[in-house]
Amino acid sequence: MMKKFTVVIITLIAVFKAIASGNEWRTLDPENAILLTLPHGKVVIELAPQFSPNHVKRFKTLAQQGYYDGNKFYRVIDGFVTQGGPEDGSTKDKAITPLKIEGDFSIDKDWSFTLVQDHDLFAPQTGFKDGFALGRDNNEQKAWLLHCPGVIAMARTNAPDTATSHFYITNGQAPRYLDRIMTVFGRVVYGMNHVQAITRTSVIEGDTPVDPKDFTPMVKVQLMSDLPKEQQIQLEIKNTEHPNYAKKLSDRRKRDNAFFYKKPPPVLDICQTPVGVRMIK
Amino acid sequence: MMKKFTVVIITLIAVFKAIASGNEWRTLDPENAILLTLPHGKVVIELAPQFSPNHVKRFKTLAQQGYYDGNKFYRVIDGFVTQGGPEDGSTKDKAITPLKIEGDFSIDKDWSFTLVQDHDLFAPQTGFKDGFALGRDNNEQKAWLLHCPGVIAMARTNAPDTATSHFYITNGQAPRYLDRIMTVFGRVVYGMNHVQAITRTSVIEGDTPVDPKDFTPMVKVQLMSDLPKEQQIQLEIKNTEHPNYAKKLSDRRKRDNAFFYKKPPPVLDICQTPVGVRMIK
Repeated sequence: MMKKFTVVIITLIAVFKAIASGNEWRTLDPENAILLTLPHGKVVIELAPQFSPNHVKRFKTLAQQGYYDGNKFYRVIDGFVTQGGPEDGSTKDKAITPLKIEGDFSIDKDWSFTLVQDHDLFAPQTGFKDGFALGRDNNEQKAWLLHCPGVIAMARTNAPDTATSHFYITNGQAPRYLDRIMTVFGRVVYGMNHVQAITRTSVIEGDTPVDPKDFTPMVKVQLMSDLPKEQQIQLEIKNTEHPNYAKKLSDRRKRDNAFFYKKPPPVLDICQTPVGVRMIK
Repeated sequence: MMKKFTVVIITLIAVFKAIASGNEWRTLDPENAILLTLPHGKVVIELAPQFSPNHVKRFKTLAQQGYYDGNKFYRVIDGFVTQGGPEDGSTKDKAITPLKIEGDFSIDKDWSFTLVQDHDLFAPQTGFKDGFALGRDNNEQKAWLLHCPGVIAMARTNAPDTATSHFYITNGQAPRYLDRIMTVFGRVVYGMNHVQAITRTSVIEGDTPVDPKDFTPMVKVQLMSDLPKEQQIQLEIKNTEHPNYAKKLSDRRKRDNAFFYKKPPPVLDICQTPVGVRMIK
């Protein structure tokens, strides 16, 4: 009898712990997800209104207006960015009010994230929050979304507050020198392989240039929740605030696997640290 | 007369300097280049016999035997590696003598490279030599090729000296934790966009798996010099030992361009630092 009681108590503790820390997976909110349909596949982007509210609002509004449908990826540089939008100089783009940059945001001492690395090459600290990779500077009391591969950010001219509707998705080694001076507002959570297959528009000197008529179009850019449920891509994403995710990071740093016959330095490049995604059927 | 003489001297000094440091561009040696023909495009790989002699010798021999022709890329993980070779367990692969790992090599105090960054997250120093990205540890007196995007390396099992013929090309954010424990032996210098378009074989949980019959084949893997000259892809690559390249690095670190209204940290991620390539027509 005493034994049974103990089991009940232990089980209850485990349940409370799980409730307190949430689930290991969270469901992608379709109100906060973009479906980018390419001629060769579908791409899902999770938006980050908690970090870049005005850019997300802008992108959602434009997507819901069908603004991007048929636009092309006109600046696609391998290992750098896949940029698209209406043709340069179009009246459509000129009619849009430029946005104030949201390159970083203020934090207080209570702001927390799941720490990945201290003294990263570009940031004093890196870590995950809500599945997004961020940098943090406690002296400046600032945090910012990082330019890891697969993030979506708004393009601009030389002045900071000039973003309108043109956007890019990073497609290669993280161009971290753009951190804080561009507004990242989401990231690809499904179909990065299709982003990688978008036709490069920049070729090396001496190679045959790509005809603009062959540039890859965005067939449709839609807010996921605007689609009938059966046409939505429903995803679950690893909850980076769950204790199991912190454990996964610690395991990854240690590399306690027989394959590592000699251990690499116990550091983590956050842009090379995956956050799991799975499909709900 | 005196003036004319000075001009001649200055001109001569400039000429001598240019000769001493070589040209800004060097020609890719076709004896040292691999042409990988994919169904959707051509890829050129520059081999690195100066750093990984035995792996290069092996790869050249196999290519010249036509060993890889028709092999498939059977392990293609987006943001990580594009791996191929004969089907696992094939007799062909088993007949090959495993290679001793060439993960790093000894250097003496006179060994030099074009320094890119001190205190990189993974290495005490990074720099370029012959267009290749390397790490260096002066205390250990070792240097090694880095796992930047687009490098080719031989796969192995858990033990270090087990590489035979299966190879991978890195396709995403540099998996630097593999530095020194795998043998990198070359890098893609043309057609990385085609590598990026190779069909991913690993899909997320819940997604429709790719049928192995749809895996991307290597149509042909050939030594460039074995092809008739008119079928060769002839390239020139920036000479990373030329003073102009060091200047380019310094400019890139400074970001003295109006676009950088706020300066990023004055650091360089070597894997995000391009080495120019152009085609000779």
